[in-house]
Formats: sequence, C-alpha cells, structure tokens
Amino acid sequence: MRIDGALLERRLDELYAIGAEPDGGAYRPLYGAAWATALERVERWLKDAGLKTRRDAVGNLWGRVEGTDKGKSIVTGSHIDTVRRGGRLDGALGIVAGLTAVEALLKEKGKPRRTLEVVAICEEEGSRFPTNFWGSRAIVGAIDQPDAAMAEAIRERGLDPTKAASAARDDIETFVELHIEQGAVLETANVPLAVVSAIVGTAHLELAVTGRSDHAGTTPMDLRRDALAGAAAMVHAVESIAKSLGRPAVATVGKLSVEPDQINVVPGKVVFTVDLRHPDVAGRRALEERVRSLAATIAQERRLDLKIRTLQEKPPVAMHADVRALLARAAQECGVQATEMVSGAGHDAQILAARCRVGMLFVPSIGGRSHCPEEATSPVHLELGTRVLAKALELLAY
Amino acid sequence: MRIDGALLERRLDELYAIGAEPDGGAYRPLYGAAWATALERVERWLKDAGLKTRRDAVGNLWGRVEGTDKGKSIVTGSHIDTVRRGGRLDGALGIVAGLTAVEALLKEKGKPRRTLEVVAICEEEGSRFPTNFWGSRAIVGAIDQPDAAMAEAIRERGLDPTKAASAARDDIETFVELHIEQGAVLETANVPLAVVSAIVGTAHLELAVTGRSDHAGTTPMDLRRDALAGAAAMVHAVESIAKSLGRPAVATVGKLSVEPDQINVVPGKVVFTVDLRHPDVAGRRALEERVRSLAATIAQERRLDLKIRTLQEKPPVAMHADVRALLARAAQECGVQATEMVSGAGHDAQILAARCRVGMLFVPSIGGRSHCPEEATSPVHLELGTRVLAKALELLAY
Repeated sequence: MRIDGALLERRLDELYAIGAEPDGGAYRPLYGAAWATALERVERWLKDAGLKTRRDAVGNLWGRVEGTDKGKSIVTGSHIDTVRRGGRLDGALGIVAGLTAVEALLKEKGKPRRTLEVVAICEEEGSRFPTNFWGSRAIVGAIDQPDAAMAEAIRERGLDPTKAASAARDDIETFVELHIEQGAVLETANVPLAVVSAIVGTAHLELAVTGRSDHAGTTPMDLRRDALAGAAAMVHAVESIAKSLGRPAVATVGKLSVEPDQINVVPGKVVFTVDLRHPDVAGRRALEERVRSLAATIAQERRLDLKIRTLQEKPPVAMHADVRALLARAAQECGVQATEMVSGAGHDAQILAARCRVGMLFVPSIGGRSHCPEEATSPVHLELGTRVLAKALELLAY
Repeated sequence: MRIDGALLERRLDELYAIGAEPDGGAYRPLYGAAWATALERVERWLKDAGLKTRRDAVGNLWGRVEGTDKGKSIVTGSHIDTVRRGGRLDGALGIVAGLTAVEALLKEKGKPRRTLEVVAICEEEGSRFPTNFWGSRAIVGAIDQPDAAMAEAIRERGLDPTKAASAARDDIETFVELHIEQGAVLETANVPLAVVSAIVGTAHLELAVTGRSDHAGTTPMDLRRDALAGAAAMVHAVESIAKSLGRPAVATVGKLSVEPDQINVVPGKVVFTVDLRHPDVAGRRALEERVRSLAATIAQERRLDLKIRTLQEKPPVAMHADVRALLARAAQECGVQATEMVSGAGHDAQILAARCRVGMLFVPSIGGRSHCPEEATSPVHLELGTRVLAKALELLAY
C-alpha cells in the first residue's frame, strides 16, 4: 500500500494552522470557533475521499464507507481538540492518518467487505470544560447530562444537548488508532513503531498541607510550622518513591499553590496534586500507599495537618489481545519489527474498550516532547505509522 | 504615671473596626477610605487631647505640643496602614499608646520643656502600592516622585503629589515607638517588655528555576528535568541552612509559583522568593552565600537552569545607644526589668535613624501571631508598655 507522505504532512499543517496561538502552538477547545473550523476541514476531506459523513449529538464527526457484508464497523480516528499551546500531532495525527489510510485503501482495494469508519472525536483533552474523554464517553453511553455552560456551548454549535445520549453506539467491532508516543522511550531505544499493550492506571491525589502563617522576620526557625517546607519534603518524597520503584512507575507533582504567597510571610497552607501511574493495578496501589505513608510521616514530624483527597482513579486498560496480534502482523507485513509498550498517557481507546475491541500504534516523539509547540515526529515515521495502520485496516475490513 | 488601660483598649477597638474585613482582620490600604477614616479618628483624639494637628504632603498626621524651650522635637507614634486581614495592634498600638501617653503627661505634668509630637505615619506595610516605608521615607526626604497611579490616589485625598518632598523634616531629635514583638521570643522567655537593640538586615532574593515541561504519563523519571522537584530541594536547603546557623538567622520561602501548573504536566518552570534576615551584616551575607551555593549545586545536579535576582537588600540598623539606655531606665523606673532583643521585622525607626536618634519598645505577642486577625497582646502588657513609653517621653521632654 502506498501512502502519500506529502499529503499527510500537508493535511497536518492545515489542521495545525487552525487555532494557531500567537506564541506558538494551537488551541482548539471543545465547541470553540477553531474546533468548528477544524471539524469542517476534516469533513470536507472525508467527503472528498468518498466517505459519507454525519455528526452525532455531541459533535463527534463520522465518515463511513458501507461494507459489502453486514456486521459491526471497523473504526479508526482520534480527537480533534487540543490542550492550550498544543502541538501539531496529538489527536490530529490519528484523524489525518486514519482518513489518508482509508482513502488509499478505497483507491487501491475498492469497496471493503466490512463497514469502515473514520471518526474525529470531539473532545479528549479536557480542553475547555472540567471533563475529559467527553467524545468517547458519549460513544460508549457513559456521560451525564452536560451542565448549563456546556449545554450552552453545545447549542452554539447547532447541536441539541438534551440528545447527548443518542451518540451511544453498540455497532463498533474494532477501534484502532495511530498516535504519537508523547515520551522518549521509542526514540531512546531507536525503534520506529510500537504496538500498545496497555494504557496505565492513573490516580490523581490532592494533598492539602496546613501549618501556621507567621511573620518571616520575627518567628525563629524552631518555632515555625511552615506548610511549604513540609510540602517541599513531600514533593521530594514523591519523586524518590517513583525513582526507587523504577520504570514504568511515574509520579508527578504538577500543580502547587501557596497561601498567603507573600514574600515575608511563612506559608500557612500549601495545596498540591500528585499524578501516579503504573500499568498494573498492584504497582499503582503500591506507589500510592508509599506516597500516602511518607507524606503522613512528614506531616506528623513537622506538626502539620495533612488532608488527602482522591480526585480521580482510573484502572489500567489492556488493549485487546487479538488486535495487538493483528497490529504486530500488519507491522511485520510492512517490513517493520514493532516493539510492545505501555502507554503512560490516557487515550480514547481506554474508554472505547468498554464496548469494542481496541488497539493502538505509537510512532516516536522527537525528544519525547508533547502538549507543546515542539511536539514532532519525523516524516518517515509518520508515513510508516500510517502505512501500518492502513495494512491493519485492510486485514480487518477486506 | 497612670495610664488608663480601658481607654487604651477602647481606642484600639475603635481603630480595628475601621476597615474590618468580612472574614476577620482589618485592611486599611494607603489613601483608601478606611485609611482616611482612621486618620480622621486619630486627628480627633489628638485635638481632644490638646495637640495641634496638621497633615504633611504625603498624608502623615502630626499632633504637636510646643515646648517651653527651643530645639528639635521628641516624637512618638507608628503607622496607620495595615496588611490585608491585618491584626488589631501592628501600627495601631504605637499611635494609640503614643497619644494616650502624651495625653497623660499633659494632664499630670503640664506643658513640656521640649516640643512633643505624636505621628500617625501614612504607610509602612506596602499595603497598596509596591513601595513601603513611604511615610517615614518622606520624613527623611528619601522618596522619588510617586508614579501616576499613586499620584492619583494622593490627589483623591486632597493632597498634592508634586509637593511630596515638602514632607521632609530635619527638626526631630528623637523618635521612640512602642510596637508588638510579632514573634514568640518574649512570650517563650516569659518577659513582659524588650528594648530593641537593632533591626535585622534583610535580603530578598528571587530564584527562577527552569527545567523542561513534559507529559506526566509518558516521561520516565530518569529522563525528566522537573523544575518543581528541583525547587523543592532548594526550599528544603533554605530551611536547613537557617536552622543549622541557629537563632537569630531566619530564612523563608514565602512565594512560589509553578508553570504550567497542570496536574498532568511535569513543571517546566518554578519561581520562588527567599527572605533572609540576620542582625549583623556578616551573618546575613553568610546566610545568603550558603543559599546561593547550595541552590546552584542542586540546579547543576538536576540539569536545571537557575537565575537569582536580588529584589531588595536592607542593612541592619542599630538603635541609638543613648535612647536604648534611656528606654531601659524608663522600664526600670516603672519597676520592670526589660530584656534587649533584635527586631526580626522592619520598622519606620530603621528609616528615621538616618535623620534622628531612634529607639523602640516591644511588648509580647500572644502565640507570636501577627499580620493576622489572631494578633493579640494581654491588656496588662499593653498598659505596661504604654506606661514605660510615657516615662521615656517624660525623661526626654520634661
């Protein structure tokens, strides 16, 4: 199968220009103007490739080629929304590669045996509202009614928020997605492609450390209950625990705020988050237990009050064994030995796994950069990933 | 000399009610409505006590009783502005105690030999604009022209910002002030009164730590350049250095901000401040050098970029030896053995020291609390401090 690498790059450039930010990167928040423009562009491409398009009640865009056989659909695609100052490939690649692969298949192989669909999922990033996986959750029928602000945004796009439940589908057999790795594992190992074995389990904790706010000049060190000094010891502990457990465990303190946050006042309160990930449940639990225990010890030692809340807890999700095998075979037929790896990031596939067979392919991220304007993958790897995706779709649908 | 403790408490209550905030504490920012109301209240008290009042060009309020001899003035007082959610005593006590002491002296001893003045200094806290010691700097002739926003605020109070320089005085011989300790040294040592020996030197540093922002799920621990993990190690170092040097060295990280401050992103940049204080210049420098050196080592070890800026540097200021001796004598004549101590906080006296002899008295702060609604001193200590202040003014002016 021949994939037009230049066309792939051109389409990625076109999408990246939509929602471009003045200081680099693109931002296409759910239901915003850039989001709508990007979706129209993809719709035109799908139509031009001969697919029949429709939007569901939450704004997921579907392009469909009816198969000669009856039966459930084979679907590929990714999400159209981006984080702030997002890069050129996260989400966009899965859509562009999916439609370019299906376009090539239709041209070379004609009408498929199985119904083939390309989807641009409306939201995955939590790009605008405090929700994520909004699009894939709608597809598996796992969303609540949108709140007032979100309902208003949905109406602004000419959709009916009361109909959100109608986006649910139970006629998808297999979902496969090409995505960038977003880390530096493949680059470091010098491997051009990976089949994802599982998506890690994630726990998000919020730790609130309360000490006593005091005058920075008049309070001797030995009489302080400094919430930030305590929080700093906990941040250090989080890092040490993940390092000591070794790969693939990761733990990150990403958000931290200080009260009263004044140059001459001993901090009275610090709130920070911990993001903990591990591909197996026991590993994730062990990580969390050690963090909780060491934080409690530090708090006690420093006479600080500590409250820990679980903000989110997502179990690891294994990719379907048959789909993994099929993706490995597709790679092999394209002359590539793909490695297997765990995804440290969340993806729509982990949600869709509730209703269909799922599988993912990763191409390397240069320098491991993602969610930033520096996000990039070499054209050779992009074309290779798309070619393997097309081969997998051929094996599934023809 | 009899001091009316009940009157003292009533006046402090009255001032504290001006600018009261809904969640406790008072806020009287420079040139604001609460500030103006508080100044009017003090002006009425001064007039009722028989002092002649005037406001200078920056809004310092002066109450004056002409002495029978010629010569420079003996001045007491403090500042009228407060921090946000400020307490009942910081600044307010020095004004109320000063006027109550002078009132008692006039009643018991009649006209003074030396001219006696009570001053409500317009600003010390940096309560509204990014300036502090605005009032005392005007008195010693050390202010620049106010910027546009500040000039507008000055005009709103019916003052002329172009005349700020006219607030300078060179006819003050001695300035004495009663203040709360704002720490727990006196309370811990069970001592009711202190004569201040010196005001500490302060350095404010800003440290900017730059690493690399990465995806929290996809970046293995060993490939990260986490700015917050590095900053946490530096916060810990700042605390350890001050602790190891022992009292009276103090070092505080009060402000800290994280970029991009997202739960699932490895922090790329952290900016934080360090407040360093020591009563002697060599001690302060040693503290700063150790902080700079250890922060640089941590940055290098973690492949982080580190930039350090000095935001402010104030040398220690000794109180005048004769005034210290006089305050100690006043305490003794009131039957109290006062201790000597260094002030860890800055005060107007350190600015006024450039033009006149200065001295300060401290009364204990309950639990060491200050700059918060819990700021308190027992009525017995407030009355005692005011009585010793009155005795000192008597020794100076009669």
